[in-house]
Amino acid sequence: MEFDFDDTTKGYIDRVERFMAEHVMPAEDVLAQQLADNPGVWSRQPIVRQLQAEAKSQGLWNLFLPASAHGDEGGAGLTNLQYAPLCEILGRSPKLGPAAMNCAAPDTGNMEILREFATEEQKARWLAPLLDGSIRSAFCMTEPDVASSDATNIATVIERDGDEYVINGRKWWSTGAMNPEAEIFVVMGKTDPSAERHRQQSMVLVPRDTPGVTVERPLLFFGFDDRDHGGHAEVVFRNVRVPVGNILKGEGEGFAIAQARLGPGRIHHCMRAIGIAERALDLARERANSRVAFHKHLSEQGVIREWIAEARIAIEANRLLVLKTAWLMDTVGNRAAHAEIQAIKVAVPRMLETIVDRVIQIYGAAGASQDFPLAEMYTMARALRIADGPDEVHLNALGKAELRRAS
Amino acid sequence: MEFDFDDTTKGYIDRVERFMAEHVMPAEDVLAQQLADNPGVWSRQPIVRQLQAEAKSQGLWNLFLPASAHGDEGGAGLTNLQYAPLCEILGRSPKLGPAAMNCAAPDTGNMEILREFATEEQKARWLAPLLDGSIRSAFCMTEPDVASSDATNIATVIERDGDEYVINGRKWWSTGAMNPEAEIFVVMGKTDPSAERHRQQSMVLVPRDTPGVTVERPLLFFGFDDRDHGGHAEVVFRNVRVPVGNILKGEGEGFAIAQARLGPGRIHHCMRAIGIAERALDLARERANSRVAFHKHLSEQGVIREWIAEARIAIEANRLLVLKTAWLMDTVGNRAAHAEIQAIKVAVPRMLETIVDRVIQIYGAAGASQDFPLAEMYTMARALRIADGPDEVHLNALGKAELRRAS
Amino acid sequence: MEFDFDDTTKGYIDRVERFMAEHVMPAEDVLAQQLADNPGVWSRQPIVRQLQAEAKSQGLWNLFLPASAHGDEGGAGLTNLQYAPLCEILGRSPKLGPAAMNCAAPDTGNMEILREFATEEQKARWLAPLLDGSIRSAFCMTEPDVASSDATNIATVIERDGDEYVINGRKWWSTGAMNPEAEIFVVMGKTDPSAERHRQQSMVLVPRDTPGVTVERPLLFFGFDDRDHGGHAEVVFRNVRVPVGNILKGEGEGFAIAQARLGPGRIHHCMRAIGIAERALDLARERANSRVAFHKHLSEQGVIREWIAEARIAIEANRLLVLKTAWLMDTVGNRAAHAEIQAIKVAVPRMLETIVDRVIQIYGAAGASQDFPLAEMYTMARALRIADGPDEVHLNALGKAELRRAS
Amino acid sequence: MEFDFDDTTKGYIDRVERFMAEHVMPAEDVLAQQLADNPGVWSRQPIVRQLQAEAKSQGLWNLFLPASAHGDEGGAGLTNLQYAPLCEILGRSPKLGPAAMNCAAPDTGNMEILREFATEEQKARWLAPLLDGSIRSAFCMTEPDVASSDATNIATVIERDGDEYVINGRKWWSTGAMNPEAEIFVVMGKTDPSAERHRQQSMVLVPRDTPGVTVERPLLFFGFDDRDHGGHAEVVFRNVRVPVGNILKGEGEGFAIAQARLGPGRIHHCMRAIGIAERALDLARERANSRVAFHKHLSEQGVIREWIAEARIAIEANRLLVLKTAWLMDTVGNRAAHAEIQAIKVAVPRMLETIVDRVIQIYGAAGASQDFPLAEMYTMARALRIADGPDEVHLNALGKAELRRAS
Repeated sequence: MEFDFDDTTKGYIDRVERFMAEHVMPAEDVLAQQLADNPGVWSRQPIVRQLQAEAKSQGLWNLFLPASAHGDEGGAGLTNLQYAPLCEILGRSPKLGPAAMNCAAPDTGNMEILREFATEEQKARWLAPLLDGSIRSAFCMTEPDVASSDATNIATVIERDGDEYVINGRKWWSTGAMNPEAEIFVVMGKTDPSAERHRQQSMVLVPRDTPGVTVERPLLFFGFDDRDHGGHAEVVFRNVRVPVGNILKGEGEGFAIAQARLGPGRIHHCMRAIGIAERALDLARERANSRVAFHKHLSEQGVIREWIAEARIAIEANRLLVLKTAWLMDTVGNRAAHAEIQAIKVAVPRMLETIVDRVIQIYGAAGASQDFPLAEMYTMARALRIADGPDEVHLNALGKAELRRAS
Repeated sequence: MEFDFDDTTKGYIDRVERFMAEHVMPAEDVLAQQLADNPGVWSRQPIVRQLQAEAKSQGLWNLFLPASAHGDEGGAGLTNLQYAPLCEILGRSPKLGPAAMNCAAPDTGNMEILREFATEEQKARWLAPLLDGSIRSAFCMTEPDVASSDATNIATVIERDGDEYVINGRKWWSTGAMNPEAEIFVVMGKTDPSAERHRQQSMVLVPRDTPGVTVERPLLFFGFDDRDHGGHAEVVFRNVRVPVGNILKGEGEGFAIAQARLGPGRIHHCMRAIGIAERALDLARERANSRVAFHKHLSEQGVIREWIAEARIAIEANRLLVLKTAWLMDTVGNRAAHAEIQAIKVAVPRMLETIVDRVIQIYGAAGASQDFPLAEMYTMARALRIADGPDEVHLNALGKAELRRAS
Repeated sequence: MEFDFDDTTKGYIDRVERFMAEHVMPAEDVLAQQLADNPGVWSRQPIVRQLQAEAKSQGLWNLFLPASAHGDEGGAGLTNLQYAPLCEILGRSPKLGPAAMNCAAPDTGNMEILREFATEEQKARWLAPLLDGSIRSAFCMTEPDVASSDATNIATVIERDGDEYVINGRKWWSTGAMNPEAEIFVVMGKTDPSAERHRQQSMVLVPRDTPGVTVERPLLFFGFDDRDHGGHAEVVFRNVRVPVGNILKGEGEGFAIAQARLGPGRIHHCMRAIGIAERALDLARERANSRVAFHKHLSEQGVIREWIAEARIAIEANRLLVLKTAWLMDTVGNRAAHAEIQAIKVAVPRMLETIVDRVIQIYGAAGASQDFPLAEMYTMARALRIADGPDEVHLNALGKAELRRAS
Repeated sequence: MEFDFDDTTKGYIDRVERFMAEHVMPAEDVLAQQLADNPGVWSRQPIVRQLQAEAKSQGLWNLFLPASAHGDEGGAGLTNLQYAPLCEILGRSPKLGPAAMNCAAPDTGNMEILREFATEEQKARWLAPLLDGSIRSAFCMTEPDVASSDATNIATVIERDGDEYVINGRKWWSTGAMNPEAEIFVVMGKTDPSAERHRQQSMVLVPRDTPGVTVERPLLFFGFDDRDHGGHAEVVFRNVRVPVGNILKGEGEGFAIAQARLGPGRIHHCMRAIGIAERALDLARERANSRVAFHKHLSEQGVIREWIAEARIAIEANRLLVLKTAWLMDTVGNRAAHAEIQAIKVAVPRMLETIVDRVIQIYGAAGASQDFPLAEMYTMARALRIADGPDEVHLNALGKAELRRAS
């Protein structure tokens, strides 16, 4: 057992931290200004493209993508465990860090499944430009009309008609889909409702401009549109036709692909969340050390000290939990790490939420305003308690499995 | 001891409930549409004016204002305890209920202090139109540069110069001030920084159109602009001159007036919060009874049942706490009810926050979207944990006083 | 709505407080000494009998027992709402206060059901001496082998055999039954397992000295034997025969009687718990104001102030909840107050537990030792989270009912 | 970074687990019986000595003691990180596991400081028999009259008088001191109250039978006497004289020695606590899978599943936190691991407390009785929240340090 990072990781940590300090942090205000100056624009703002060019030139690109059986294949060749601390560093500037290095969801997950399950033709057409950063993508899974945490509820229909699949359904919370650069939608639907419950679903690749695809509206989350990130769209598929060659892996493989996509995605979400938590703690420190009330700095208040101590403890514990999960994924695989992946999905977001909530309290109303990133950080944490199914679904499954274990 | 409402209260409950069912609830969608149709408009939307006309015609107007020593003086003559349950009912539609009956903050508090402390001239000019609903008002207390929960921190300067006061300072979170109808600003500042700590402050009445008053920008709270409510403004006062007759009560009275304003305000905030909690519970019920996941209605899930039970318990306990506080204010006065007023300020918002948070969890991502009022309800609760000083300031004071009590 | 107590109640409050100050509080050390001096003795210690004589002579006796349809019938004729605050005062000295005035469980509940459901003969034989305080009693309901919160699980068999009932079963947590003065056991069992689920159970009166009754052993709760209170016994009934006249009310009435017994019992438990909480807060105050660490009195520590404030808020809210429940029981009856009775069962014990836990923390290890009553107070709170079924059973039922309510 | 244990550790894990299964677990009932059969006996029960002989013969002895600069010196030569998982396994039977392998507090800490700071003569006289298991020891630090978490409060006086130190003071919670086999007391007192605050204290070795030493009484913790463990004593030192050669390291070194003692002690406490938590979870599983209420196994209740899931998450996170702390102590030393040592002191006990509390709830009243180890496990957790100073002291220090860190 060894808690120190290996040299490869340490080397990357240095480079990523330098990039963040030199390029990303100073760009935060620029992004805010560009978003304000370009209302209604959902595509990448100029500063994002600029950071991406710089990162690519420094070789800090696609760090998230582990080596495949066939070599690096477009990624940096890092293990999940090696990437995890880098992902945390990117998370400290959540709107720019991951995007700068082409490590932002949902592209990351889409690139992963394309590399693992796509045909060479599919890869050439969609994976290559995604790896290159020239296009973006969306993942269309959640539906408004059913509890989507139960995959058997999915109502979107994918019917084969000759050499085509015909898709009908309504999706929402398709992150990134408001961005017209998101040229490819990975769509989950049912090809065979009569099959065994985890073989009913399939995934097809639907180009954004296919007739019948309508991006209806942006969804807000706590009033935020996440425009910098391509937003979250409600998308309708009405008699959308794609060639049968657009299926991913094969009919009935949708559930398995979705499962495969989950593991790394959660590591990424959680490590970013830990980065956000560290940033929030920095903000707390700044305010508590500078603000005076009732003749004392806030940093001298026992209650605030206790909050800060609790934050430190919670961050450390959760970071270790995620790192160990990453290690398990690398060593025994996603399936064997299933319980741990569920655990971090539940544990980390609420850690972040509690920390950010208290930092807001330290800031007073300012903390919830547009002058600080805290309110938006809060909603990031809040969203993670729901994304991929509400926490309660995962706790139930985890508890059930644990109760079945032999003592 | 008697827990039943008196007949006057029951009569009003019936009338207010009927008004809510017939007029307010159906108007919620109308308001949403008008807000969407009139971007950038901060003044009352047409539906609000329409509801106000109807409410006034039914005599459901200024219910919040108790009788004064001189008679009803424009209010309904109800005690705090009588008004409290009505306030809860209004709170079930938080954007429309209170506004419809001219019972919305910050006008309520401003009307209270004007009636209690203003000169006849001041009353004629400002109180009358406020009671009538023809204008609105703002209360300018909190400042961006200091911890405003400590009144001695206030940095706005009010200097006498001959027959005028000259005001310089920066205020924010001036609720309602984005609304151009808010014609009068009640401004807190320091007239004598060398006086005893609670005699340094004074309040002056500043007409919105006075030269030097600049409403700089709207503040967002968790991404919401509260436009239906006149928003929250940052307001700068640069060499603003008003006649000395615009002072409220007298120099050095600011702190005492602010204190007097607090008690009823908290009762109102808290009872509205309880109304919101009941509404959230209704929403929970609807979703849990209709949504199916893993072959069960959500309402059959033990965890959700427990949440609902906890919500019911918390609502009941907090309602009683607020009602008793209202009764104390009526019988022994605001000052003697100080501890209870602090207690409800802390207890009720977090009750609401917890309930709404869980109802969002029941709804999944939909719950945090613009399709349901839950995210905005959450921010109402969240704001109350900060408004009038963060909870921690009140807990500290309450604990200190309790520790000093003789056993 | 009126939060002040009526004059009758105020009169009793004065008398009971005086009695507590003059007789009960000084007796606490005496009881501790007598318990130490009389190891193995489970019957009432001399000081208890002495206090009982004094209380009886002052007319402070059986205060818990409301008037029945036939008059006072041995009780003080107070309503639940009138008795509740007295019960709280008794609870401040939980080992002596209730016992001194013959207001201690389980006798209180047993007296209530005997008065309501017993025949004249049963009353003469058992109720009279209980009202008089000359004997004590036990209630044998919970069983070791089944989840007794589900009444249909009860395994004790009561079979009719001619003019007798034959009882076979094993009970435990029969509070008071270690005390040989507990001459009568109220035993719940099944007379008809084939009946509708709430008509299977019956209650019979079993004199302690009936052949086949074995009080096997005392149960400890967190290491405490509650010897001052008659302990908690495991009792075996092997072919125990009692005349058919010993049935209470009739066959199949057991469940209904148990339900009837619950309401007042919970009010009593909860109000006592509130009294204990106030006592714990007194202890906190004493320690925090006298102990110095790191150059400050503990009372100056922000965290401790916050705990104390939270305690005050929680006590006030819970007291109101219990008082309102008592009022409901008086005005609409136990059945209609069912939800409220469940609510206080859950809310009050954990309030007490949290408060006592923190007061122990203020005391350090001393707080958990035999030198202070805190550890034992903690276990009282802890026990209430389990007694009459674990809280979770009640929350589930409460949530289910709430979800079924029309919005 | 590597989360797998090394081969040495794995080898020991196998051996310790086998020993636990074959010898310790079956001995639990024997110990209970011997304790019952030998009331008033505080020395090791026969079964403990028997297990110790067996463990020693298997070379499972003094595993806790790392190699020193001079070689193994009586310990197994494991690092903190290697011992930690073994300590967890021992903790699963908290009354027997650690004792069986001579790895029980307070002897462990005393052996550590003796080996590090004692003279050869002191070692020969006290360390050798402790390592051998032929005697036991006590650590006399906490005092009843002051808040001992603040070391400057210590009131025990150690005055030099010629060739002797004269000790006067009152100590309590001297764990193990009720056991007459505890032949040596390590006593902390002040030799120079005028010195710098962390140089006032010294430690002297006081043989139990020195005139003036009085073991006054056993202290109970939540009603438990911990007799199997030598209990917790109140000890008075009245003009106790020991040779000057009995000082440990030197005058003014007491605080530093206490600090050095803390690190490993906390690792041990925390890893044992994790073992207890796993045991509690086993107990939960057994009950939830076998008990039926309302037509369902408890294991099918959503709330219980959630508890179990939460327990699993919390155990994993806390275990990693402790292991990393052990690794830090091994690699950068106790002082550099200070924050982490404080963190686990706070985080682990409450994790255990919450888990055990819920398992008791699953068991109902049985869980708090003498029939299951849960109530005693609860008190172990509860005690750790106070031992070495209440958690709040550590949180305050941790928060203060964190607030001072550069962002």
